[in-house]
Amino acid sequence: MKIFGIDPGSERTGYGCIERIGSRQSLVICGSLAGRSNATFPDKLQAIHSGLVRLLEQHRPACVAVENIFYARNVRSALKLGHARGVALLAAAEAGVPVAEYSPAEIKRAIVGYGRAEKQQMQQMVKLLLGLDAPPAPHDVADALAVAICHMHTISGPLANEVRTGLARRTPRAWRDYRPAR
Amino acid sequence: MKIFGIDPGSERTGYGCIERIGSRQSLVICGSLAGRSNATFPDKLQAIHSGLVRLLEQHRPACVAVENIFYARNVRSALKLGHARGVALLAAAEAGVPVAEYSPAEIKRAIVGYGRAEKQQMQQMVKLLLGLDAPPAPHDVADALAVAICHMHTISGPLANEVRTGLARRTPRAWRDYRPAR
Repeated sequence: MKIFGIDPGSERTGYGCIERIGSRQSLVICGSLAGRSNATFPDKLQAIHSGLVRLLEQHRPACVAVENIFYARNVRSALKLGHARGVALLAAAEAGVPVAEYSPAEIKRAIVGYGRAEKQQMQQMVKLLLGLDAPPAPHDVADALAVAICHMHTISGPLANEVRTGLARRTPRAWRDYRPAR
Repeated sequence: MKIFGIDPGSERTGYGCIERIGSRQSLVICGSLAGRSNATFPDKLQAIHSGLVRLLEQHRPACVAVENIFYARNVRSALKLGHARGVALLAAAEAGVPVAEYSPAEIKRAIVGYGRAEKQQMQQMVKLLLGLDAPPAPHDVADALAVAICHMHTISGPLANEVRTGLARRTPRAWRDYRPAR
């Protein structure tokens, strides 16, 4: 089963696809998408969208995982992020792939076990969990892989059965919109 | 020449296409797009995007005009708006149509001649300018038509030549990204 993480950004959107085989998870592909630096804003969005459409078509993940960003710093950055996130969610909808969302703290807890972990700790843990030679870089790729791992742990970790049957006391935020792939 | 105005919103996106024939402008089509109310957020974005793609394909406007919304009330509403606006700009880019952006005050000045005009004044002027029987409703349709008229005035009004040749003292904000359709 493959999970596809996305870290949307209007200048550069990171992505990372991971796969679980048995009890191990491994990297399938990761990278980032960007339009030409002199392109118009709509053309940059198109580059991100068409890249994601192609990748989702190619890897057919069971789920797309994204950070929810209701905590953006200010209105202006929220707007720009919203545009990129909009075309990312659209690509998932067009591919018929359900979307799971996690808050930054949920992702950090899932990866490092601590909701206020530092960027470097996160990158080191992503490296360890996926058995990589070096921490993934740049940071948008690491963030995309982290949210994918977070979702993988949520649906297949020790709590997964409780979550699935609705017994977990704190249902992850992402679960509200999650529809298991059949 | 047709201009296609869009008023993006994640719940409902208004659109309005106008045409200039000689010195008169008239309504081609207007309406609003929405996903099913019980659809997931990505599916709502898909409904807006696919509706716009179909309309742009059908009417082949010379330009898409949208309000720029760097003045959203708060981070949360900015994010939601950003998602819808992102898929609207994407639809324009996919159709190869340039995008012009105007601030709310620029639109009000173009329609009513006063940057702080009320909603009702705007609706009445849109009705008059397009020779409609009644003011357009709901408000997202009126707003989409208003931004289309604003762009039409900018490129064909008394200032158009000065704008085109760079002589206008206050180049409209929208002009920065505007590439005339060939």
